[in-house]
Amino acid sequence: MTDLAQLDATDQARLVREGEVSAAELVQSAVDRARQVDPILHALVHERFDAAVADAGGTLPDGPFTGVPFVLKDLDGTMAGEPFHGGTRFLRDHGYVSPVDSELTVRFRQAGLVVIGRSNTPELGLVTTTEPESYGPTCNPWDTARSTGGSSGGSAALVAAGVVPVAHAGDGGGSIRIPASECGLVGLKPSRGRSTLAPDGDAWAGLVARLAVTRSVRDAAALLDAVEGPGVGDPSWAPRPERPYAQEVGTDPGALRIGWTAASWDGTVEVDPQVRAATEATASLLEDLGHHVEVAHPAALGDGRALEHFLPAFSAWVAREVEHLGELVGAEPTPAGFEPGTWALAEAGRAITAAQYLRALEGLHALTRDVVGWWLVDGYDVLLTPTIPELPPTLGQFGATPEDPFAGVMRSASPAHFTAPFNITGQPAVSLPLHQSEEGLPIGVQLVGAPAREDVLVRLASQLEGAQPWAHRRPTVWSGDAAAGA
Amino acid sequence: MTDLAQLDATDQARLVREGEVSAAELVQSAVDRARQVDPILHALVHERFDAAVADAGGTLPDGPFTGVPFVLKDLDGTMAGEPFHGGTRFLRDHGYVSPVDSELTVRFRQAGLVVIGRSNTPELGLVTTTEPESYGPTCNPWDTARSTGGSSGGSAALVAAGVVPVAHAGDGGGSIRIPASECGLVGLKPSRGRSTLAPDGDAWAGLVARLAVTRSVRDAAALLDAVEGPGVGDPSWAPRPERPYAQEVGTDPGALRIGWTAASWDGTVEVDPQVRAATEATASLLEDLGHHVEVAHPAALGDGRALEHFLPAFSAWVAREVEHLGELVGAEPTPAGFEPGTWALAEAGRAITAAQYLRALEGLHALTRDVVGWWLVDGYDVLLTPTIPELPPTLGQFGATPEDPFAGVMRSASPAHFTAPFNITGQPAVSLPLHQSEEGLPIGVQLVGAPAREDVLVRLASQLEGAQPWAHRRPTVWSGDAAAGA
Repeated sequence: MTDLAQLDATDQARLVREGEVSAAELVQSAVDRARQVDPILHALVHERFDAAVADAGGTLPDGPFTGVPFVLKDLDGTMAGEPFHGGTRFLRDHGYVSPVDSELTVRFRQAGLVVIGRSNTPELGLVTTTEPESYGPTCNPWDTARSTGGSSGGSAALVAAGVVPVAHAGDGGGSIRIPASECGLVGLKPSRGRSTLAPDGDAWAGLVARLAVTRSVRDAAALLDAVEGPGVGDPSWAPRPERPYAQEVGTDPGALRIGWTAASWDGTVEVDPQVRAATEATASLLEDLGHHVEVAHPAALGDGRALEHFLPAFSAWVAREVEHLGELVGAEPTPAGFEPGTWALAEAGRAITAAQYLRALEGLHALTRDVVGWWLVDGYDVLLTPTIPELPPTLGQFGATPEDPFAGVMRSASPAHFTAPFNITGQPAVSLPLHQSEEGLPIGVQLVGAPAREDVLVRLASQLEGAQPWAHRRPTVWSGDAAAGA
Repeated sequence: MTDLAQLDATDQARLVREGEVSAAELVQSAVDRARQVDPILHALVHERFDAAVADAGGTLPDGPFTGVPFVLKDLDGTMAGEPFHGGTRFLRDHGYVSPVDSELTVRFRQAGLVVIGRSNTPELGLVTTTEPESYGPTCNPWDTARSTGGSSGGSAALVAAGVVPVAHAGDGGGSIRIPASECGLVGLKPSRGRSTLAPDGDAWAGLVARLAVTRSVRDAAALLDAVEGPGVGDPSWAPRPERPYAQEVGTDPGALRIGWTAASWDGTVEVDPQVRAATEATASLLEDLGHHVEVAHPAALGDGRALEHFLPAFSAWVAREVEHLGELVGAEPTPAGFEPGTWALAEAGRAITAAQYLRALEGLHALTRDVVGWWLVDGYDVLLTPTIPELPPTLGQFGATPEDPFAGVMRSASPAHFTAPFNITGQPAVSLPLHQSEEGLPIGVQLVGAPAREDVLVRLASQLEGAQPWAHRRPTVWSGDAAAGA
């Protein structure tokens, strides 16, 4: 009997399509695996086990992933009739249930995915670890003393442990790529406007993009195909691809011009030697594959503007989001409902004027022009960097301290160092689990494409996956048959 | 000898291409016409006559409009080494000269257009008439006691009087379409992201779109072809057309489903009987042309959300813009540098918090979803409305009063009533000069397309232009040979 846990979503869907397994059996097996490992991982915050099995036993939409078990992240992937708490005590204590499906939820379900539950997330996705006070820490399947990253850490843990093959994730500063890197997964952050944010207009002024964490490149491509395209009334959207991304998988990328760096943009962050070595090794591999590889990156990333303009905007978004949650439940938000770091950010954000906010956006837009010119004017195709500069951090480092409510947020600057700039620019970027540390911890590398060029990224990621596969690796906490080892 | 003033830009460019006239002669003729009528119209605020003739006598880029005289609006169409005052005393008194070409200026000039000057605009484009205190009122060529509309009123006057065939214009609430309507021109506001705003990131959170006012539909289409497409690092951009818009001119639009209204969305604005009759006549004409025409419009436009959420955002944009002008010249803005209405708006805007601003944007985005659904869910192709509900207003109505600094802004609510919603939604819309009042004043009608569907608008506008041409009409103030009359 096939170990269902080890199959990616494409293979699981094929089994259903070919009648090898029923959707109900497939979903039941995921529920069984969740019951087995979630007590260790603490990755699911709301179970939907019985409803999922019932869904799978009924008539499912006929899509590319019909019958494949799935998880929605409890930050934005709202589903009508299901809880939505965003990692906050505030919504949890109000027992908030979402009245609506997000458009992305609609599309995931139209693709045939079956939602078995909702995954843990840091409060409002503000830090790069998944340890909210509301639901407690999620543990990394590769080392349960370590973080899964954030903010899609709950989703990443469940995929890494083999519970579901793919899970919903969103990325406003690295929240798809960082958990992917820390949990040994593929994390594709789509271009701004590629996957609709409806019913939101934009989120964080366009910095947030949403999709999933996956184990294979082909799953990331096919999922993007399934959900890409504007929603009705989206304020803007990315140019549509000329052909499905799934067709880019295995397509020769040609000889690309690739710049890479394994050093902090501006010297503010230390890069772990093992991470540096992994990035260097990827650069060598790319050279071996026939690409033109050189040490190069957009100079503007080191000039300090990113953080200068991001911070006031970030705090303003938090201020509005806290206020918005109050509107959702019809109650005034109070410090008791939020973590000290969240509340301090909201307080700072409440003091930001609209004019200050607009000035910050202008700064981010101007920075974007300079950064993107590296691709569109200087002519590079792809930038290679570490995904995060460190090994997956141990749990317990990202909270506020009595002296400094911003300590957790500031601790997030390191994991987000290489990822966040491409939320500002709206470019597509992917983290690939190409390496492991001496201790057996996952080390991801990031590939960043020109605006709207997911096609190039998928071709290149697929080439790397073929040259240096990772599918055989198993974490310590694995919900399928006995681990094959790293 | 051909009356050059009566030719559109496409025909003027052909004369140059075919050697019938040199670029220098063509530009000189425009300069002569400007000298003849601008003392009456007061539409040019900065002349560039000698430089333009010199440009035309040198080597011009080989583009679709090589040698055609052109005017840049003095609001955003910056040109390196030329004044940029935005209708303000503040920049005028500082003698501000722009160090940079806007990307749109670059593209206009790459298309071969020759800039003979900069046109008048209301201060920061905030009201729908072109009567800044800094440079005085621009007069309407059809009746010099009347407004040209705003904010592209200077450009519209010069095109209407035959000085230049096309002129740069921008539209944040109707500022292309309203002057087109009041001056008897074609005013196509492109979709959000169709023509780059670089070096700006966005402008008014995506409400501003920039292009031109023209006399023919084919000029609007060909100009859009010449300049469309993203700039390097634009935060987002519209999907590119499948073929040039010029090819849509004369293409059968098929039988479209067209809804129309000649009444205010919400009863807040009175529609002049002649304007109503013009809109009704257009509806009849569209029916005669084989379209499915019915009285219908998006209900959400009447629910009050547009103004509720627009006003705080608008004042915040003004606050930031005034501050930005101070940064440009390195001096603190003071009330002496600005009109009372502008200053009062900026003062109001300074009191808006970032969270209030973000809440307003959320409201505008949610409204957009409901409005756009009329096209994308209900299945309409085009909405027909009046462009403005009144005849071109007489000059002198749009200033602040001693009692009410906001009087001018509030007076603008009527002309912008039918246009501004489609800045919020980012849809393409065009004003066509299909009608005239009993007094011989231009009356425009507006056609609004689905998001990014300029192709449909160009086909339909071209069909209407063929069925009911306007090219023969001449205003009272006409810079070419003796007027042919209406």
